[in-house]
Amino acid sequence: MIQPNIPESAQPRVVIVGGGFGGINLAKQLKHAPVQVVLLDRNNYHLFQPLLYQVSTAGLEPDSIAFPLRGIFSKQKNLVFRMAEVTGVRTADNILETGIGEIRYDYLVFATGSNTNFFGNKAIEQHAIGMKSLIEAVQIRNYVVKQFEESLLLKDPEEIKPKLNFIMVGGGPTGVELAGAFAELRKYIMPKDYPTLPQSLMEVYLIEAGPRVLASFSEKTSEHTMKALQDVGVKVLVNTGVKEYDGNTAILSTGEKIQSQSLLWSAGVKGVPVAGLPQDIILPNGRILVNEFNQLKGFNNIFAIGDIAQMTNDPRFPKGYPMVAQVAIQQGKNLAHNLRLMMENKTMKGFYYKDLGSMATIGRNRAVAEIFNTRLSGYIAWMVWMVVHLMSLLGFRNKLVVFINWFYRYFTFDRGTRIIIKRGAANIVKLRQTVGS
Amino acid sequence: MIQPNIPESAQPRVVIVGGGFGGINLAKQLKHAPVQVVLLDRNNYHLFQPLLYQVSTAGLEPDSIAFPLRGIFSKQKNLVFRMAEVTGVRTADNILETGIGEIRYDYLVFATGSNTNFFGNKAIEQHAIGMKSLIEAVQIRNYVVKQFEESLLLKDPEEIKPKLNFIMVGGGPTGVELAGAFAELRKYIMPKDYPTLPQSLMEVYLIEAGPRVLASFSEKTSEHTMKALQDVGVKVLVNTGVKEYDGNTAILSTGEKIQSQSLLWSAGVKGVPVAGLPQDIILPNGRILVNEFNQLKGFNNIFAIGDIAQMTNDPRFPKGYPMVAQVAIQQGKNLAHNLRLMMENKTMKGFYYKDLGSMATIGRNRAVAEIFNTRLSGYIAWMVWMVVHLMSLLGFRNKLVVFINWFYRYFTFDRGTRIIIKRGAANIVKLRQTVGS
Repeated sequence: MIQPNIPESAQPRVVIVGGGFGGINLAKQLKHAPVQVVLLDRNNYHLFQPLLYQVSTAGLEPDSIAFPLRGIFSKQKNLVFRMAEVTGVRTADNILETGIGEIRYDYLVFATGSNTNFFGNKAIEQHAIGMKSLIEAVQIRNYVVKQFEESLLLKDPEEIKPKLNFIMVGGGPTGVELAGAFAELRKYIMPKDYPTLPQSLMEVYLIEAGPRVLASFSEKTSEHTMKALQDVGVKVLVNTGVKEYDGNTAILSTGEKIQSQSLLWSAGVKGVPVAGLPQDIILPNGRILVNEFNQLKGFNNIFAIGDIAQMTNDPRFPKGYPMVAQVAIQQGKNLAHNLRLMMENKTMKGFYYKDLGSMATIGRNRAVAEIFNTRLSGYIAWMVWMVVHLMSLLGFRNKLVVFINWFYRYFTFDRGTRIIIKRGAANIVKLRQTVGS
Repeated sequence: MIQPNIPESAQPRVVIVGGGFGGINLAKQLKHAPVQVVLLDRNNYHLFQPLLYQVSTAGLEPDSIAFPLRGIFSKQKNLVFRMAEVTGVRTADNILETGIGEIRYDYLVFATGSNTNFFGNKAIEQHAIGMKSLIEAVQIRNYVVKQFEESLLLKDPEEIKPKLNFIMVGGGPTGVELAGAFAELRKYIMPKDYPTLPQSLMEVYLIEAGPRVLASFSEKTSEHTMKALQDVGVKVLVNTGVKEYDGNTAILSTGEKIQSQSLLWSAGVKGVPVAGLPQDIILPNGRILVNEFNQLKGFNNIFAIGDIAQMTNDPRFPKGYPMVAQVAIQQGKNLAHNLRLMMENKTMKGFYYKDLGSMATIGRNRAVAEIFNTRLSGYIAWMVWMVVHLMSLLGFRNKLVVFINWFYRYFTFDRGTRIIIKRGAANIVKLRQTVGS
């Protein structure tokens, strides 16, 4: 019989749902706390989401940006990891319901992150491509390479264009970085791999509903980014929304139509709260309302951190903090501290977000960064971007492999991983069923 | 409309089916020949099969042992690559039938390799796991890690054992290397990642129908290998076959039963010839009978090389050459030479196989090799094995990434890529359908 088999401990149990930036930083900080930490995640790895776009554009191996959670915590004796899908919570009984059985908690922390938000547009949701998970990124890579291979089999430019037009929706860092990477595919890989396909048949669009890209940055940086994207050949459309998309044609709010079989949606994210929480603390964007201690309203021992949590008491961020890694990391660390204080019956410390700055890369030698009240762009920003991301990657092996891939790509203009891993062999059907298709 | 869109050329067209060791070596040697080369493969990459077992045991990323075919041939102007599945041949019309349309040929070369051979045992075929393709290797990795995760959820040792018993069938190099790698998983990874699972619950079996493992090596090497495998804890059973397997229990020819949900089959390979060839030149093992020039009997302009070809005129190998990379490489090169001779109306040169030796690794610091009439084992053989495999890998990036993974693993006893890449998100359904599930 399947059961969580979590050893009973005399110490209070902190159950953390989610092994993203928030969850692992909280868990790490509890290493020497007098608690039993139970970490749950549906995957067995921590995903370094900021580099996901490089996997989908054949720049990095999927394994390079994923780090096994058991590896991270192999030396943390007070932590138990279980790979499990959380299905609900019974707060009256302090019980979490999961795919591997019920798990009792003393303290419960939701660090479940966010999902792609299509804002209720079912047609777009059905046909657009999200990019939040590793398998999505790998499948985008497969799909993109396949679009090129299939374009070679067509003669009519009108049939080829929808295959080679790529639309990114959403002008935030993900959209900007994706658009830049696609522009590089066109510039460096297309002429080498597909010399018979005219480059004029491929277009990269970046569509943003607001008046500027990278809206969370300064206006100056937005302008600079917009210009840099146009320089590398991206068609940037601001003040423009996507009204309809059927998998072949996108109809914009301006009435313009773009033929494209690939619409990558990074225009929004939303929380996906677990069943069993009171509806009045769940906001329309799916985030859970928390106080300055990351506590859910009405609960003493249930918390939410990172993307899933919305904290509105900071006057700088009246609509809640941005859904970025830094907030999750800092909230994880602060909550670890607060849990200790709470158990010692001391007053907890309200969360204060220290904005370490943000950055986005546009492509080879080009990035923008706003750190320590300084605005950087171009080559310097690009170097800073690379160093920061390399340092943040978990694990020596991943750092080294990513560094080599970047180094190699810089000097060869090549992308090493543009392979299509197809399924198909008959005798893997069994595996597919078990591993979960 | 989909069509192959292969440009017409005044030069004769050589169509090569398969981008494995045989196909790419033939294609490369034809770089300066007065021919148009059309290379077809169902995948867009060349797979370095000798290291496939390391992908399935979480030692290497799948991308490290795959190299995009377009990358290999980006500078070969007389070559056209198309990703296509070949479905048949109409020899009377010199037409190859493929999933992307009909392709005319002047010379046709089958270099399609081999598939797993279950020797007609349907029950075993249904439940066993083959290991010939990249996706199979990735799925084995996912599956193995999942077996460990699920074992944690069980309390009864009798329920756990079938999950942690791994059976390799076939004592050739693949079976030996797999068994060695699984033994290392038990020795180094299991205590670190799953300290609560007693190692005694995991067994690794290597089952060989003949009297010794590595039958193609000398008896001395076989003995040495057998001892080395036993040293690392593999249960080696020779003179033993698998009679039945239902996905949970393997019944051996000795009557012994082994509980296991994982039976990896590397006990044989077979050719899968294309439809349309005369039946009398297709052998029971699926290989195509060729003469010393790799020509199919009855055809002047159709050839087969590598695993799919059976050449029986070498008295050293009355049953045909072994199905190994070296034969394919050498036949590819020889055929390139012969095609030139043929077009100049000169006499072709019969193939002569130069055995460069063979090797197999058993694990950390242990390998066996027989090269230049010298028998090596232990640390030296292991170093030779690594150097030879690194040098043979295509591409600087792959060499470097594989080297780093090995280097890292050697000093940390860690395996970096033990992650489970699951499918599941709703909005990738469309992608899955197109990319081919």
